[in-house]
Amino acid sequence: MSAHPLDPIFHPRAIALVGVPSGEANVAQGFFTSLLEHHFERDHGLYPVNPKAQEIRGVRCYPTLLDTPDPVDHVISLVPARAVPVLVEQAIEKGVRSVHFFTAGFSETGDEEMAALEREMVSRLNEAGIRVFGPNCMGLYVPSEQIAFMAGFPPEPGNVMFVSQSGANASDVIRNLGARGVRFSKVISFGNGADLRAHHFLDYAAHDPETEVVTAYIEGVQDGRLFFEAVRRAAAEKPVILLKGGLTGAGARAAHSHTGSLAGSTQIFDALCRQAGAWRAETMDDLHDVTIAATTRLRDVQGRGVGLVGGGGGIAVLSADALAAAGLEVPPTPEETKRQLHEFIPIAGTSVNNPIDTNMGNAEAMERTLGIVARAENIDLVVTNPPLGRVGPAGAERPPDAERDREEAEAAVERIARLQEETGVPFVVLVRGAASPQMEHFAQEAYRRGIAVYPSIHRAARAIAAILAWRERREGLPAVV
Amino acid sequence: MSAHPLDPIFHPRAIALVGVPSGEANVAQGFFTSLLEHHFERDHGLYPVNPKAQEIRGVRCYPTLLDTPDPVDHVISLVPARAVPVLVEQAIEKGVRSVHFFTAGFSETGDEEMAALEREMVSRLNEAGIRVFGPNCMGLYVPSEQIAFMAGFPPEPGNVMFVSQSGANASDVIRNLGARGVRFSKVISFGNGADLRAHHFLDYAAHDPETEVVTAYIEGVQDGRLFFEAVRRAAAEKPVILLKGGLTGAGARAAHSHTGSLAGSTQIFDALCRQAGAWRAETMDDLHDVTIAATTRLRDVQGRGVGLVGGGGGIAVLSADALAAAGLEVPPTPEETKRQLHEFIPIAGTSVNNPIDTNMGNAEAMERTLGIVARAENIDLVVTNPPLGRVGPAGAERPPDAERDREEAEAAVERIARLQEETGVPFVVLVRGAASPQMEHFAQEAYRRGIAVYPSIHRAARAIAAILAWRERREGLPAVV
Repeated sequence: MSAHPLDPIFHPRAIALVGVPSGEANVAQGFFTSLLEHHFERDHGLYPVNPKAQEIRGVRCYPTLLDTPDPVDHVISLVPARAVPVLVEQAIEKGVRSVHFFTAGFSETGDEEMAALEREMVSRLNEAGIRVFGPNCMGLYVPSEQIAFMAGFPPEPGNVMFVSQSGANASDVIRNLGARGVRFSKVISFGNGADLRAHHFLDYAAHDPETEVVTAYIEGVQDGRLFFEAVRRAAAEKPVILLKGGLTGAGARAAHSHTGSLAGSTQIFDALCRQAGAWRAETMDDLHDVTIAATTRLRDVQGRGVGLVGGGGGIAVLSADALAAAGLEVPPTPEETKRQLHEFIPIAGTSVNNPIDTNMGNAEAMERTLGIVARAENIDLVVTNPPLGRVGPAGAERPPDAERDREEAEAAVERIARLQEETGVPFVVLVRGAASPQMEHFAQEAYRRGIAVYPSIHRAARAIAAILAWRERREGLPAVV
Repeated sequence: MSAHPLDPIFHPRAIALVGVPSGEANVAQGFFTSLLEHHFERDHGLYPVNPKAQEIRGVRCYPTLLDTPDPVDHVISLVPARAVPVLVEQAIEKGVRSVHFFTAGFSETGDEEMAALEREMVSRLNEAGIRVFGPNCMGLYVPSEQIAFMAGFPPEPGNVMFVSQSGANASDVIRNLGARGVRFSKVISFGNGADLRAHHFLDYAAHDPETEVVTAYIEGVQDGRLFFEAVRRAAAEKPVILLKGGLTGAGARAAHSHTGSLAGSTQIFDALCRQAGAWRAETMDDLHDVTIAATTRLRDVQGRGVGLVGGGGGIAVLSADALAAAGLEVPPTPEETKRQLHEFIPIAGTSVNNPIDTNMGNAEAMERTLGIVARAENIDLVVTNPPLGRVGPAGAERPPDAERDREEAEAAVERIARLQEETGVPFVVLVRGAASPQMEHFAQEAYRRGIAVYPSIHRAARAIAAILAWRERREGLPAVV
C-alpha cells in the first residue's frame, strides 16, 4: 500500500514554534517544553521564533520564520490572531508542509469578521499546498516522532489513534487510557477543523500501518457525507469507536461556543455508527472501556457465560446483579467443575456455585480455581480480582515494599496471561478503589499482556456487552493485527 | 430519649476472642490484630482464648471463656461450627451480653442439620438474654469504642451507620467511602442474621444519637413487615439509603449461597423504599455517592440549574451532556453575569456561556469566576474542578513537593468552603482520573468542610438528581443535625 497523502505531515523533519514566549521556563512555553521533554530536537530541528530573544532555554531563537534553517516542515503558531496574516505569508514563502494554529479567536467566537479571516488564511495556505490543523487546537501527539503537545505523555508509541476536536479530551484520553496501559500511534486535536477535519483523519487512520484501532471525539460534523464514508471505510478495516459531544441541548450549546460546531441528534449519530459498522461510545468512560476491550483478548469473547471468581460474598452478589443487568449470564457451575473445585476448597465459608467465592489467601489455589472455572463448558470468559498474594478477610495490612509489590504484581499478571493462553478464554480483572502503585503496575502489565482490566464490575459488564453486541451486529469485527 | 435496648451491646466493657490461633502474628489472627491496632485493649479488657497458648503476641491468653476475668460483655467466636455448642453454654455461664459468630458453616450451606444447630444456639442464647451477631459475619466496627474487624480502618468516629449482611461490602464501604472522607458511627456485618438482623439495627439507628445518616446493604428480608416498619421509622428521623443485592436471577442465586437469603424483586423493593421514604441505591457506587450527597451541603440543593465552570472545551461539552441526560439544566449565563465575567476574562479561547471555560491558570481568577457564577439568578449549584494553582493547557508538570501540595489543596478547599458559605449555593467538585496524594487530600478535606466531591461528572449528576428526586418525593428530607 503506498503512503497516504497526509502521511508526510505526521513525520516532519523540523518544527518551528512561532511566538513562543522568551524568559526562563514558564507556563506559556508549554509546547516548547513538551517537544524538548520528548526529545524532539535530538533527531529533528526545533526552532523557536521570537524577535525579542537570542535563545530560549538554551535553544537558539530566530527573529522570524524566514530566518530559520531549512527545511521546516511543520509550524506551530502561538501568535495572536491579528498576527496570523503575516505568518501565513511567511509559511508560504518558507515552503512548509503544515501549520498548526494553537491561536484561537476565529470562527468559534461567533464573530463574522474572524470567521472570514479563518476562511481566508486556510484558502491562502491550501492554495500553496500547505495543510492546516485548527485553529483553536492542541495539534499533534506522535510518540514515534517525539512530538507531543503536553509534558508527561507516554514516550512509547502504540496502536491506537485518537482523533479529537477537543484538546482537553485528547489529553484526557492520553493520560487516563495511558495510565491503563494503552499507547498511541497518533493523537490529533483539530479544534475548529477549518481545513483538516474528522473525515481526513479517519481516512488516514484506515491506511496508517501504525494504527490498529481508531477512536474519535466529534463535536460537529461539517461534511456529513464525507464523514460517513470515511467512518465506513475505516470501520471496514479496523475497529472504530466514536464519541459524539453535544447530543443534548446543553451540550450542543457548549459545543457551539467551543468549536463553533452545530451538533446533531443522538438518533442520527447512532444510526450513522450502526450503518458504518462503528461503535458509538455513550460517554468518555465508555470510549476508554471499549478501547480496552478492542485491544485485548476480550475482543475475542465468544459468548455471554461469565465465570465470576472471588470478591467475597456480598460483592459477588452485587457483581452477579451487575453482569445480569448488562445482559450477561452467570450460569450455575457444572457438577463436574464443582467436583474438581471441592478437591481442594473447603465447604464452610465458601461457595463453588458461580459466583465462586473461595475466600483463599494464596495465589496458587487461586490459579488452580481460575483454570478449572475457565475450562467449564458453560464459561466464555472469567471475571476476577488480581490474584495477588493477599491476606485473609480479617488479615493485617503489610508494610509497603515497592520492590516486592512490583514482583508480586508481575507474577500475578504472568499467571493470568498463562491461563488466558492455555484455556483460550479471555480474562477480565477488576482493580477497584483507590489505586495503589502495585495495582497500577498490575493493570499496566496486564494490559501489555492482552488482559482487560476495569475499575468496576459495572464498567466491565458494559464493555463486555458492547463487544458482544458489536460482533453480533457485524459478524466479526475487523481483525486487530 | 432513654437509651435503646440494643445500645449496651455496642459498648462492651471487655471482649473475649475465643479460638484465636496461637503463634506469632499471622493472618488468622485478623480480629485480634484489628482490635490491638485500634487500641481496644487500652480502656477495655481484651482476652484471647486458646487452651494451647499462655500468651499470644504479648497478651495473656486463657484456656476457656470461663477462665477470663469479669466482666466480659462481648464474645467473638472463631471456633469451628462443631465447637459452638460448648461455647454457647460457657457464654451463658459467663453472663455475657452478646456473641458474634465469625464461625460459618450453618444455614447458609443449605444443610438442614446445620440450620437446626443455628436455630438451637440462637434460642439457647436468647433465652439467657444474650444477643447474637451472625453467624457467618464480620461483626462490629465501632470506632468510638476502638472496635474494628479489620486493620487499617479509620480510627475516628463519624455520623454514618452502615448495616450489612456482607462483610465484604462492609469493608468496601468503610475503606472506599472512608477514602472519600466519610466516617462512621457503627458498621455492622450480620451475615445469616439468625437473631439480630436488619430491622433491629435500623430501629437502633433511628434512636442512636451518634448516627445521622443510615445506610444498609440487604440480601434477603426475613421479616417483611418488621423490616418495612423499621425502615419507615428510621426514614422519618434520618436519611436512609438502602442497597439490595440479589435483584437479578444470578444475583439471587449468589445471595442464597452467601447468606441463605431468598431475594425479592426490584419492583417490590423499590416500592417498599418509596413508601417508607428511604432512597434505593441501584449499585454500591450509588450508595457511596448518595451518602456523600446526604452528608454534605449538596443535601440542601434547591433546584436543577447547574453552573458548570472549568474542565476545558470538549470536557465541558460532555459534562453538559451528562448533566442534561440526568435531567439537570445548564442554563445560559444571564447577561449581567456575562458582563461581570468579561470584566476580567478575555474573549479568545474562553467561553462565559454556561458551561464556563475560562482556561485560567490562577486560583484567584477562578475564585472570582466561581463566586459570580454561584450568585447568578438561574444557578442552584456549581460544578467545578479543584481550584488548584494549575498550569496552563500546555504547561509543564511541576516536580512533586508533598508539603506545598498539601497546603495548596487546603487553600483550595478553604476558597470553595468560603464561597459555599457566602453564597448559600452548594458546590460539587470533580476529582477525576488517577488519584494523586494531593487530590486525595483535597477530596478528604473538602468533604470535612461539607463539600461534595465525585470521581466523574456522571456520578455527580446521578447523585444530584437523586437528592432532588428524593426531596420532591417526600417534601424535605429529615434534617441532618
